[in-house]
Amino acid sequence: MKTGPTPKYRYTLRMKVRDYECDLQGIVNNANYLHYTEHTRHEFLLAERVSFAQLHEQGIDAVVARITISFKQPLHSGDEFLSCLNVEKKGVKYIFYQDIYRLPDYELCNRAEVTTVCVVNGKLSAGIDILDKIANQDEP
Amino acid sequence: MKTGPTPKYRYTLRMKVRDYECDLQGIVNNANYLHYTEHTRHEFLLAERVSFAQLHEQGIDAVVARITISFKQPLHSGDEFLSCLNVEKKGVKYIFYQDIYRLPDYELCNRAEVTTVCVVNGKLSAGIDILDKIANQDEP
Amino acid sequence: MKTGPTPKYRYTLRMKVRDYECDLQGIVNNANYLHYTEHTRHEFLLAERVSFAQLHEQGIDAVVARITISFKQPLHSGDEFLSCLNVEKKGVKYIFYQDIYRLPDYELCNRAEVTTVCVVNGKLSAGIDILDKIANQDEP
Amino acid sequence: MKTGPTPKYRYTLRMKVRDYECDLQGIVNNANYLHYTEHTRHEFLLAERVSFAQLHEQGIDAVVARITISFKQPLHSGDEFLSCLNVEKKGVKYIFYQDIYRLPDYELCNRAEVTTVCVVNGKLSAGIDILDKIANQDEP
Repeated sequence: MKTGPTPKYRYTLRMKVRDYECDLQGIVNNANYLHYTEHTRHEFLLAERVSFAQLHEQGIDAVVARITISFKQPLHSGDEFLSCLNVEKKGVKYIFYQDIYRLPDYELCNRAEVTTVCVVNGKLSAGIDILDKIANQDEP
Repeated sequence: MKTGPTPKYRYTLRMKVRDYECDLQGIVNNANYLHYTEHTRHEFLLAERVSFAQLHEQGIDAVVARITISFKQPLHSGDEFLSCLNVEKKGVKYIFYQDIYRLPDYELCNRAEVTTVCVVNGKLSAGIDILDKIANQDEP
Repeated sequence: MKTGPTPKYRYTLRMKVRDYECDLQGIVNNANYLHYTEHTRHEFLLAERVSFAQLHEQGIDAVVARITISFKQPLHSGDEFLSCLNVEKKGVKYIFYQDIYRLPDYELCNRAEVTTVCVVNGKLSAGIDILDKIANQDEP
Repeated sequence: MKTGPTPKYRYTLRMKVRDYECDLQGIVNNANYLHYTEHTRHEFLLAERVSFAQLHEQGIDAVVARITISFKQPLHSGDEFLSCLNVEKKGVKYIFYQDIYRLPDYELCNRAEVTTVCVVNGKLSAGIDILDKIANQDEP
């Protein structure tokens, strides 16, 4: 058994499958992994004192432009897991690298690359200071 | 086989179960019936030229105060159904009576009573004209 | 500010709103409260060493027959809350009393009564021992 | 205004945004696009007389291995849209090309490539006849 995820992550959220997230195949429905990764990004931002909801009220929307997600192992009812995240800025894009590991065996369940951009008052922005500062921090 | 729902309804929407709405028991998860009934109310209002989203932008929110829902028969993958609605106003409340029938046998699947009120700029309202007019129409 | 929920509960789960659970009104969509209460029941059962998913695999399905839920205060993005539960058996029914309190002010957000029954191999059951034992325990 | 999607598709499903699918940004939450594309695949299969749920009961699970999805334009409350699909087989993979167009202007909203494989009794399969036959049909 592995002792933990090999790559280093900026942020890790421990979560647990909820039964309503499982579909008739008895495994977590794919769309819920986008929920998990979105929630992890927002919790990461909150930990950095940035609220997605407050940004929206200020006319700043972080929007997802592209997602690539590979499914390795399904999660089942009762499974706990780690939702892990790194982020970097490339041009106007904030790219989140998000991996989910099943507990307690640290099996990689899925791996996502989520490309986001900032839209300010309806227009594509080159980025906003508060997010640039977060994205440019050194990895742990 | 019955030939149709016995009660008369103001509005009927034909829908179909989507597989992701089914949970590990292989039947539609209960929470989705609230989705079905909400969507039916909003489509009913649109048919009466009232948009829930536009009301919200005008500071008018129709909010649900209470739901009572009885589950008679579950819906399964592939099932089509009729989502039927009546409405009446009682005091400040708009009460929606919403029944779902499985097709093609018109078996009653669930029966809900949804009590809503209008909140205008954050305050409970006695009702708004456009909804009063809809709720006070004679039943078909 | 209150110091905690006044009624005594058998089981309490601390949860947090996820942004994707909020709808265009900026508050948690009503259907998600059924998700919260279902997850709380299943976690309660797990704490009592009963798995909803395993029961299903054994041909035993706990199904919801009726829900009454009153909405007092909405939850918003970022809110944490307590999802609290009591249960009693009446005839063939297991009735769950489920209240949700917003943190940190213990404001009551909603109050639900969820009536469930057991279906064993497709037939309504008078109840199953393991659940009867849980339901008949003295309240705390 | 365009008169329709330029590429030719094997299958097209007309759908409409439901308000509960919109999040606090007032647009359809990203995870719901996976719901739309899954539902479209399952309806396509049903039109070809293949039931996803029945396959599951026979021990055959079509599972998603990888999704790449680009978001071009968001959908809003009330929007109707076309969910379009092509499919081809490459090795053991069935690759679905799925595009969503907003109505009535045929604006491309998102473009997804969904790679699926068949798992039969828990083991990766080279494919199953009934799906191979569908995937190998000539494009329209």
